[in-house]
Amino acid sequence: MALRLYTYWRSSAAYRVRIALAVKGLQYEAVPRHLLRDGGEQRRPEYLELNPQGLVPALEHDGHVVTQSLAICEYLEETHPLPPLLPADPLGRAAVRAMALAIACDVHPLNNLRVQQYLRGELGQDDATVSRWTRHWIDRGFVAFERLIARHTGDGRHCYGSSVTLADVFLVPQVYNARRAQLDLSPYPRLAAVVQHLESVPAFAAARPEAQPDAE
Amino acid sequence: MALRLYTYWRSSAAYRVRIALAVKGLQYEAVPRHLLRDGGEQRRPEYLELNPQGLVPALEHDGHVVTQSLAICEYLEETHPLPPLLPADPLGRAAVRAMALAIACDVHPLNNLRVQQYLRGELGQDDATVSRWTRHWIDRGFVAFERLIARHTGDGRHCYGSSVTLADVFLVPQVYNARRAQLDLSPYPRLAAVVQHLESVPAFAAARPEAQPDAE
Repeated sequence: MALRLYTYWRSSAAYRVRIALAVKGLQYEAVPRHLLRDGGEQRRPEYLELNPQGLVPALEHDGHVVTQSLAICEYLEETHPLPPLLPADPLGRAAVRAMALAIACDVHPLNNLRVQQYLRGELGQDDATVSRWTRHWIDRGFVAFERLIARHTGDGRHCYGSSVTLADVFLVPQVYNARRAQLDLSPYPRLAAVVQHLESVPAFAAARPEAQPDAE
Repeated sequence: MALRLYTYWRSSAAYRVRIALAVKGLQYEAVPRHLLRDGGEQRRPEYLELNPQGLVPALEHDGHVVTQSLAICEYLEETHPLPPLLPADPLGRAAVRAMALAIACDVHPLNNLRVQQYLRGELGQDDATVSRWTRHWIDRGFVAFERLIARHTGDGRHCYGSSVTLADVFLVPQVYNARRAQLDLSPYPRLAAVVQHLESVPAFAAARPEAQPDAE
């Protein structure tokens, strides 16, 4: 089977999918789409044919296209179950999905490139205000996430239990964004400890932005 | 088994879960949490014990708590598979999840109450600007969603195939929000036709905000 990932090195949503692919040991062709060049390559008509939302990532699998990072991860989980990225029991699966969604819904979209562009353009906000906005929503998310880790971690090195799950897959890229926004992680010690461990795991290291072919 | 839903009549995330429960014919106790009264009942310490994010909905099942509307819907799907809200094949499941996520991630969180409060408070924006912001993100989402329906609908009355899926469950509450924001739906004729049909389905009608015990 042939896997092709439309990606951008700094996209944290693409970063999630790169981690999931690496954890499952799946080879893929990376097709970079530069989000800033020429007004954004993800907005070109031929890309909109693939993904009408005009966002990365998108995964092509034998000619079929899957979009939305969590839907892609669930697709990989269903088609390549091992190693699992979700627990076996429904309550565990729900807890892991809720952690992934707490980032995918309630943190990341608020700080996405297109939102920052709207705040600067249409609303005329300056860089300092946009940075404060960015840090505010990450902080709100991380305060809650810290409590979720306390509730669900098994070993202090993973968000849930004692192996890698989608909660870890979604947390690490958000921390990358948090560092870019110069957010101090010390108020979230459990979260910081989990990420420190995960960043040493080869699959996570291979997926990081700086290791991508289109890194600048 | 005992199901208890922490809900608010106008919360579109709670509305999704109410639809899913109704489609599956599950009885539950509704526990309203008023999002505006006294600074928001969802921010009280006893509620944060249930859901550290301080958001509705949350579902309690025999004493176990599940949060995040999509995680709740997937939990219901796994514990009560019939009638199914996801197709059987992985590509179909991915397409439906991507549609649900296009709303859950890329439309709804940008217009959530707490974001509107931040725009008005911290950023000092007026009502007209907040309304324009709200309509902008719904429009961006609906333009893409319209194309996804064209790609996936089977009968013009459902988002995907010819039965109710999570894509429908997530679309209808977002259209409720769109109407509140006075967004004209005529640019999205397929979407409008799907919603017109779904609103006549009893499970969707029972879940609508005006039919809830805490409706004002």
